[in-house]
Amino acid sequence: MFYMPARVFSGNDAIKDHAEALTSLGRRALIVMGGGSARKNGSFFDVVEVLENADVEFECFEGIKENPTVESVMEARDFGLENGCDFVIGIGGGSAMDAAKAISLMMKHSDETWEYLYDKEAPSDMLPLAEIPTTCGTGSEATAVSVLTRTELNTKKSSVHKLFPTVSFVDGKYLKTAPKSILNNTAMDALAHMVEGSIHRKATEYTRMCAAHGLELWKSCKPILLGEKVPEDEDLQKMMDVSTMAGMTIAQTGTTIPHGLSYPITIGCGIPHGKCVSYFQAEFIRAMEKEDRDWILSRAGFSDPDELNDFFVKVCNPEKIPSEFRERAYEELKSNPSKLSAVPYEITNEILKRISGI
Amino acid sequence: MFYMPARVFSGNDAIKDHAEALTSLGRRALIVMGGGSARKNGSFFDVVEVLENADVEFECFEGIKENPTVESVMEARDFGLENGCDFVIGIGGGSAMDAAKAISLMMKHSDETWEYLYDKEAPSDMLPLAEIPTTCGTGSEATAVSVLTRTELNTKKSSVHKLFPTVSFVDGKYLKTAPKSILNNTAMDALAHMVEGSIHRKATEYTRMCAAHGLELWKSCKPILLGEKVPEDEDLQKMMDVSTMAGMTIAQTGTTIPHGLSYPITIGCGIPHGKCVSYFQAEFIRAMEKEDRDWILSRAGFSDPDELNDFFVKVCNPEKIPSEFRERAYEELKSNPSKLSAVPYEITNEILKRISGI
Repeated sequence: MFYMPARVFSGNDAIKDHAEALTSLGRRALIVMGGGSARKNGSFFDVVEVLENADVEFECFEGIKENPTVESVMEARDFGLENGCDFVIGIGGGSAMDAAKAISLMMKHSDETWEYLYDKEAPSDMLPLAEIPTTCGTGSEATAVSVLTRTELNTKKSSVHKLFPTVSFVDGKYLKTAPKSILNNTAMDALAHMVEGSIHRKATEYTRMCAAHGLELWKSCKPILLGEKVPEDEDLQKMMDVSTMAGMTIAQTGTTIPHGLSYPITIGCGIPHGKCVSYFQAEFIRAMEKEDRDWILSRAGFSDPDELNDFFVKVCNPEKIPSEFRERAYEELKSNPSKLSAVPYEITNEILKRISGI
Repeated sequence: MFYMPARVFSGNDAIKDHAEALTSLGRRALIVMGGGSARKNGSFFDVVEVLENADVEFECFEGIKENPTVESVMEARDFGLENGCDFVIGIGGGSAMDAAKAISLMMKHSDETWEYLYDKEAPSDMLPLAEIPTTCGTGSEATAVSVLTRTELNTKKSSVHKLFPTVSFVDGKYLKTAPKSILNNTAMDALAHMVEGSIHRKATEYTRMCAAHGLELWKSCKPILLGEKVPEDEDLQKMMDVSTMAGMTIAQTGTTIPHGLSYPITIGCGIPHGKCVSYFQAEFIRAMEKEDRDWILSRAGFSDPDELNDFFVKVCNPEKIPSEFRERAYEELKSNPSKLSAVPYEITNEILKRISGI
């Protein structure tokens, strides 16, 4: 299946050049953001300018944290309802964009409690939603996924609803002020999406289409991640587009073992998501069938999984994960086998332990 | 921009395996078909089986001709309304699928006359629409375009509305009974879509994503077109997917000079569409900037435009186009410059004459 109904505007000044695609969504926006980065990188002011020019009102809900909690979604929902907002704009990385999706859903279903996010029988209709990525890894602007932290369970769980944005604006210039570590960590997340999505049991020629071109562009950005090249505007746009293509890939498939292993470690050790999934990529790729392994490595420009791992170490500077967390991740993955069964090969306990690094 | 909201189910038994995606569209279907091919290739019976299993009624409007006319659209619209149909299923090549789009639109706007098809100010909402391709060239299952013949103007003109299907079923097995000439002509049409779409002024990294993978798959199908290999099931599925990817490409961009030149010649000389656009590809590619030319030819597996033209001659066996038709096509293209201005290079009259073959 291929299904990605969001309208994606890509390129420099995407918001200003396609203002009506944003301002036609409603009369009063709830803008959902993280910390100060949306002001620093200019995305917030681009949004405000086009809204004001069209006399569309807005309210801001700032302070969505990394790995956003269900509680923060409900708080923002109430704030949006109290202020009479009729559409949502998410600006930021995966945290703000994923939260914005859940907020759009819960605002539409204003009488429901947080359990609605996990009710498989309930309708998924939501308020109109615009997403504006300011990092280059999550791909949330092209997926229906909203990953949220379940505080009481001490892990992350995606909402069961399919929450595609109405429209996304993909502008590389918002990466200009991003710290190098965020650029690198999120670019590794995009790689992970293409790696995991292209071999997923649900992969098709269409997901490979997205991953193949995304990997080719990703490869050309490696010198930037290594610090060997200062990125020009077109490089940053490319990194942003790669992330969106990687999102289009996992929008069809979902992710597999490395993502599954990463969640409890991200929460437990505070390791950023893109970096965290990358600990497991090399051994995951090694466990693939040769044809798939070659397909991925040749497109990403690595001769073997070790070279990919060396690249990860260089660009993400990973600290050691305490073995008890690796073991917990391994046990959790085994007890919740959806990420495991998404792999089209047999993954023995021995192989899974090797991927987990225990 | 990337926007392709149709849900595409691809693969063997796509209709049966995703029956609900078809049967949930309404209670009584209008099935729009050409001649007998939908019965011969089995697609019609697959549709009937899933509809009957779900107690969804249907009526058939058969006999949509190649290059369907506005008159036939209006006739089918009236037939569908009289029979109380609430959704449309198009089965066939571009003619049946393009007609089905226009019929869905006109059934929704049941009080309107045919001029509605060309009314830029009017809403584009339509009845739910499923498209089932049985040739491998048009890509109509992934585009918003409905090309219709304007009898009074003696040429083809696309409806101005954006008419994406709700859902498409892309199953290679419907190609099994297709005459070799149709397989070849339509596969050349898919190539034309990727060639014209990837250099179009509206091309983006996302259209190149679709064209790049499509061209790579297309290249692997060349031995089949040349008659050097008997196609296996997976080859036919690949040819069908290529066509859909090529459709996803032009859904974002539209086509350019070769398509523009072909319309009056197809109508005037009765040359099938895919074959007709191919007369002009080699010189069109030669007129491109080197980077674009190399991008296309290397992916399609040709060393130069001449080799592509030799391939065309071998697989399509083209007859001579009388020079007065080439001249008329050249004049028409110059007088309606949208296809010309879609090319991001300067195309002088001299170059355009060379492409037109005059």
